[in-house]
Amino acid sequence: MAPRYEVIGIEGLPEIGAGDDLGRLIAEAAARQGTPLQAADLLVVSQKIVSKAEGRIVRLSGVIPSPQAEVLARELGRDSRLIEVILGESRRVVRQDKGVLIVETHHGWVCANAGVDQSNVDADTACLLPKDADASARSLLRRLTELTGHELAIIVADTFGRPWREGLTNVAVGVAGFDPLKSYLGEQDPAGHVLQATVLALADELAGAAEPVMGKLARIPVAIVRGLAWERADISSRALLRDPTRDLFR
Amino acid sequence: MAPRYEVIGIEGLPEIGAGDDLGRLIAEAAARQGTPLQAADLLVVSQKIVSKAEGRIVRLSGVIPSPQAEVLARELGRDSRLIEVILGESRRVVRQDKGVLIVETHHGWVCANAGVDQSNVDADTACLLPKDADASARSLLRRLTELTGHELAIIVADTFGRPWREGLTNVAVGVAGFDPLKSYLGEQDPAGHVLQATVLALADELAGAAEPVMGKLARIPVAIVRGLAWERADISSRALLRDPTRDLFR
Repeated sequence: MAPRYEVIGIEGLPEIGAGDDLGRLIAEAAARQGTPLQAADLLVVSQKIVSKAEGRIVRLSGVIPSPQAEVLARELGRDSRLIEVILGESRRVVRQDKGVLIVETHHGWVCANAGVDQSNVDADTACLLPKDADASARSLLRRLTELTGHELAIIVADTFGRPWREGLTNVAVGVAGFDPLKSYLGEQDPAGHVLQATVLALADELAGAAEPVMGKLARIPVAIVRGLAWERADISSRALLRDPTRDLFR
Repeated sequence: MAPRYEVIGIEGLPEIGAGDDLGRLIAEAAARQGTPLQAADLLVVSQKIVSKAEGRIVRLSGVIPSPQAEVLARELGRDSRLIEVILGESRRVVRQDKGVLIVETHHGWVCANAGVDQSNVDADTACLLPKDADASARSLLRRLTELTGHELAIIVADTFGRPWREGLTNVAVGVAGFDPLKSYLGEQDPAGHVLQATVLALADELAGAAEPVMGKLARIPVAIVRGLAWERADISSRALLRDPTRDLFR
């Protein structure tokens, strides 16, 4: 039978606040819309609601910018308090230009503004990436397993830009319960060739697959990926960080 | 109702050769497996079968490497005839290291080995990217519209590596019938913020979404993306090439 899977957005989640039981809210919303969670569902969850549930919100009026942030903010034409917040989330600045800071976050992600985001929050607040999105994913997985009894998997996702290509794509910044990479290393193709170095970033592909039903405006912060076989594993999203010594692009 | 869509692999396609009527073969295989093409289906088609149908196969025994290819091949420890083929597909070499050539193709894609690939072909042969994968996509779209009467859309896809992140992802190298970018420019989020510069690379996300049912070994070179609303447009994959002056990464 032809392999197939489905991507289903979960509507009807309330506005998320610090301390909310995200697992319960997601399971209930899925059930309410007639698509209760099933065994082997993989959930793609927007970084934004995870951060909100974890209270990763900063009030800019309480931020005192460092001299470095002041200088950078002037160069970029940005709010120095926001720059201070971004620098606090960053290991290093990769590039600065045209009002944008490309940084490497403490997690190791290379992205604009360290994933710090002012959409879908009040004007005075900025939303940070989860402190440890893999831990967030594992914790959500435990809660959902407890509530549903099913074996599930989780991707915490955010939309990042990338070099060379136009447009953002949704990618995984935290995972739990499955192997984020799918490897064809050493397998033979039908013509008898041994395929070398073919490792697919499954977690990023599925994060991207979820984005078209999530969108930015539709208040659909979670999607179910249903019907796809994934390999159960306890591997973190660090597997998606390219070893700098093997990265021909940097 | 919750937004949802399905990704369906198409099995049972024969080995593709030069001159084959890909449109007919795809429509027939889809019907044979009980999932005939429907209105608004978006098809993700592996670059490999498009190239094979277009005869974009080079016999290495007939290739005479240039002196530049000889030098590069020695540095990389690769077959100089293969390097000659790769250079012929390239506008410039972006980076060379560890046996890999990262190039910018004549189309403008930055990828390893100009997309030239020796898997799923004979030992003496190499498979090139389509000469103009947008033209390939448009031609396939015309043929499928003729055969089915449906309004469809096409992505020609290949798996590319990327900077910073481990693992390849399937991306669009040619498109037809829809807008490969989805823009939230100037729209307001529910909190009243105007979202700026939020452009999603829908075509790349859907190419990636198709990969898990296609795989490298399963001889499933086509997947149907069914149930997703896409915007009908006559826009080429050039829209996915980032303007170098706006690319903070290069």
